[in-house]
This record gives sequence, structure tokens and C-alpha cells, in this order.
Amino acid sequence: MKLVHDMLAGHRLSLARLISKVENRDSDLSLIMGQIYPYTGKAEVWGITGPPGAGKSSLVDRLAVHLRAEGKKVAIIAVDPSSPFSGGAILGDRIRMQQHFGDPGVFIRSLGTRGKHGGLSRATNEVVLLLDAAGFDVILVETAGVGQTELEILRLAQTVIVVLVPESGDSIQVMKAGLMEIADVFAVNKCDRPEADQLVRELVTMIGMSAHDEKSWIVPIQKTQALHDLGIENLRRAIGDHQQYLTQSGHREMRAREFLKNDVIHILSERLNQTVLQAFETSSGQELLDQLFKRKMDPYRAADIISAV
Amino acid sequence: MKLVHDMLAGHRLSLARLISKVENRDSDLSLIMGQIYPYTGKAEVWGITGPPGAGKSSLVDRLAVHLRAEGKKVAIIAVDPSSPFSGGAILGDRIRMQQHFGDPGVFIRSLGTRGKHGGLSRATNEVVLLLDAAGFDVILVETAGVGQTELEILRLAQTVIVVLVPESGDSIQVMKAGLMEIADVFAVNKCDRPEADQLVRELVTMIGMSAHDEKSWIVPIQKTQALHDLGIENLRRAIGDHQQYLTQSGHREMRAREFLKNDVIHILSERLNQTVLQAFETSSGQELLDQLFKRKMDPYRAADIISAV
Repeated sequence: MKLVHDMLAGHRLSLARLISKVENRDSDLSLIMGQIYPYTGKAEVWGITGPPGAGKSSLVDRLAVHLRAEGKKVAIIAVDPSSPFSGGAILGDRIRMQQHFGDPGVFIRSLGTRGKHGGLSRATNEVVLLLDAAGFDVILVETAGVGQTELEILRLAQTVIVVLVPESGDSIQVMKAGLMEIADVFAVNKCDRPEADQLVRELVTMIGMSAHDEKSWIVPIQKTQALHDLGIENLRRAIGDHQQYLTQSGHREMRAREFLKNDVIHILSERLNQTVLQAFETSSGQELLDQLFKRKMDPYRAADIISAV
Repeated sequence: MKLVHDMLAGHRLSLARLISKVENRDSDLSLIMGQIYPYTGKAEVWGITGPPGAGKSSLVDRLAVHLRAEGKKVAIIAVDPSSPFSGGAILGDRIRMQQHFGDPGVFIRSLGTRGKHGGLSRATNEVVLLLDAAGFDVILVETAGVGQTELEILRLAQTVIVVLVPESGDSIQVMKAGLMEIADVFAVNKCDRPEADQLVRELVTMIGMSAHDEKSWIVPIQKTQALHDLGIENLRRAIGDHQQYLTQSGHREMRAREFLKNDVIHILSERLNQTVLQAFETSSGQELLDQLFKRKMDPYRAADIISAV
């Protein structure tokens, strides 16, 4: 496939076209993924999440600048499950583009849902695989918020950075949103605010409470001021430490295997979805639906019948 | 099954126990659902959503009081996908309980995720079916926020009420969050605030812009002040009008059929999930996972192999 060949050779427009195919759930997807898959597995994938207004985008931009200074190629995927838009100007894409304008070592793309439910985490994963195969060294996946869909998407990240700002009740928010479980590194952004130390203390307490033995990763907390480029160096180092920990502890392989299992399940689910919808279009499917609607059959029995066909 | 029999006879503790079985994905679920399903399909199911702080809970409580005055039995399910808690005291459950204390015609229950991803919308649907079979006339499903998971859950509602408060940028929020597409009725709560009329005007414009012919439902906007019990009567009437519209237009049946198809898909997905995870536990499954991890095989091909077994 010429498009894949060109993308692997570093052709930017081909990469953009392949990403669009992923978004549109193109019928060639399994072919494309089969071809690029051998070239994947090299990139570091970082997830960045946190409540709206925490300054995630600024932090991601600063991290990108630092990574560029290390000579690394960086891709940023901004995922917004509440937005029907994609590839466009959400999350300040245009402003961000300006900063890295003309730098072929930075790729920025937004992903939204386009009205489809559930498919966003699969699409995000496939875009990550494309960017990985295209030779980006670090792929930053930034979510717009901290909902269930966002947490689901962040499963693909090796290192998850949770960005918080000093505000009353924020540490309770962290617990409620399930962020404590997924954080590998905490960034306390806008740390010039007076309540910053209080938030850090609360996080230290919460990290201390979670069960761990001497071999487990102690989630570090880094104070940052993305707008003034303060603390980014330390944050980057903490992420690097976590990446090293993943390799040395064997957790990298464990996480990858766990993720691959889920990926296969998601592919099969997508197929199942199509197959069942088609089955309901047949005359016997319509009859089944009639019986369901009239309460003469329950959904579990209908599922048995459909899966037996 | 005695538990089901008792629940159908109006025994409250049996109902609560069955709901717990749903939450814990009990192995008897398909049996239970098969037994109760013939008794379902009678209740009106209303969905209530909107951004945090819009006053959804107060509005739901006021609606419940009005419905009780009509002699209707009311169940309230408060769903919070960001909360790991359920059945407990989230969303002010205890305060709410006090208001309806000792009234067997009101049932209130909170549902959270308990750390499982994706299963919340299935569980909510099954709880609705249980309450329907238990004889509740109106089931109000209230979501904590407006994320993708919440919208997915609201598919089960016949009438969706979107609650907003006058605040700058709120109508943009509505569009971004996909609320325009799912709203059957708008409630502008806290309508004593000065910007209320501005919000109403913006909503009128947005409703006017969405394509419709003379037969389609024009989404009404009702101003309310839940805390002072103002406008609730009109809101309840608007919901009633929509319920009537659903029946007369044939949309009730269309929506129900569409929902049933998805329900069957969800049941099969849940089974698929278990089957594939088990397949990966076998020695040939472990070998397949090895090949995936080493990039010798891609996930699409692995999916082919697993589904052929």
C-alpha cells in the first residue's frame, strides 16, 4: 500500500490521510494496521490528564519544547470525548501550531467523537500506532477532562501524568475521579498560588495511604508553572524515571500485554456490533425484534439466538 | 425464583437485593432478567442531565413531589460514572431520603462504577427494568455530569430533560457537550438570575437552527426555580406533552426498538469479553499474546484467530 509506504518514509501528508482513515473507520483499517504493526512498539506514550483549567495544554507544550531540545520527535494527540469535532481547531490547536510552526519534529492532532459512541479509545490507540510507526519518539496523549471515557483512553499510556491546580477540594476530586489509581506522576501546576503546598501535602498523604511494598513505584509530585516554564525540567526527569522503572521492574511488558488483550477484545466488539446490526436487518432478525418489543422474549434469550446463528 | 416473586409482589428489600445483584454482575442475571422482562415496558423513563451545579437533584426532587401528588409511584436513580461508590450516600442521597422518608411510593438509589469500565450503562438499564417490573410509574434517571458515558446511559430514557443555569458561555457548552441532540425538554433553572432571558433566547435560536419539519417535536424551554418550587408544574406538563408526542408519532416504538438492538449487542459484548479473556489464559492464548507483544502478529490477525476458535 503506497500510503503506508510513504508514511513510513516520513511523508507527513500520508500520515494525516491515514489518521483520517482511522477516524472514519475505513474498511482498509485491518490491512493498514497489519502493515504498520511490525514498525510499532518503539515510542514512549505519555498520557496527560486532569480537570479542565489545570493548564494541561500549556504543560504539554512546554514538555514538547524540552523534548525537542533533546532532539526527540514529538507527537501530541488532544482527545476531547465531549467534542464532535476532530482534526480541527479545538483545544487551541491553531495557537499551539504557531509555536511549533515549521518544525517537522512536532505533530499535533485533535480527536473528537464525531457522534459515534465508544469508538474513540480504539481510534486513539490506532492513531498512536500510526505515529509510533511514523517514527515519533514520544507521543503525548492529552485528554480534555477526567471522565470515564478519558480514563479508558489513558490505558494506552505507559506513563500517566495527572495535572492539578491548587484549589479547594481538588484532592477530593482526585479521589472521586479515580485519578489516584492511574497517576504515575503528579504535576501541581500554577504552583505560585498560595494553596499549592497544602495540595502537595494532601497528595503526599494520599500516596502514602495506598498500599505498596519496597519495589513499587512511589508516585512523585512535581510543582510546575507551565506559563513561566518553571519545574518542567524536574517533571520531565520524573517521567524519565518512571519509564526506566517500567523497563527494570518488568511492568512495561505486563502493561503492554494487558493492553493487547483489551485491544483484541475491542476489535472483536466492533465486528460484533456490525454483525448483530446486520442480523437485525434480516426478516428473522426483524421478527426477533418484534418479540423483544412485545415482551415475548427477553434480551438475554435474543442474544443466545443471535449468537447461535 | 423467590426473590423475583417477592419483588414483583412489592417487597422492597427483595428489590434492593436484586439491584445489588445487577451491580455485582451476578451469575444469575440472565435468569433474573428473563423472569422479570415480561413485566416491564409500562414505566415512563425520564432522563435528567446537565452540567454540575445546575440544580438537577433539586429539580428531580420537586418533580418527584409533583408526581406523588398525582398518585404516581416514583423511582430515582442517580448515576455518577466518576464515582466508585454506589448504593451509598453520593449525590446527597441521605438528605434526599429524608424528604421522602417513610413514603413507600418513592425509591432512591445511587449507581457508581465500582472500578469497572463500560458496564455502568448496562447496569443502569437493568436497574430500570427491575424498577419497571416492580411497578414504579415513573423512573427518573439523573446523571452527575454531561460526559460521553452519561450520554450513553441516557439512551435508555424516553424523555431527556436537560437542566441549565444562566451562566456565560452555557449555550456553547450545550453544543459542545452534544446536549442539543439529546434534549427533549430544556429546563432553565435558577431563572431569577439576570442572564436567564439571554440563555433562553440563545436556546430558542439554537432550536430554530436544527432541521425539522412540521411533524417533528419542537423542544420546549421551561424556566424553573427548583428551590422555590416555581415552574415545576409547567415543566411536568412539557414532559407529559413529549410522552404523548412519542406515542402519537410512533417514535416511542422506534426508540424502543433501537434501544433493544443495542441492548442485545451489549449483552453479547459482555460475554465476548469473558470468552476472550479466558482464551488468553490457555497455552495457545499465551503464545498468541507473545507474538502480539513481539510484533510478529498484529491485533487484527489475532482477533481473526481467536474468533475462529
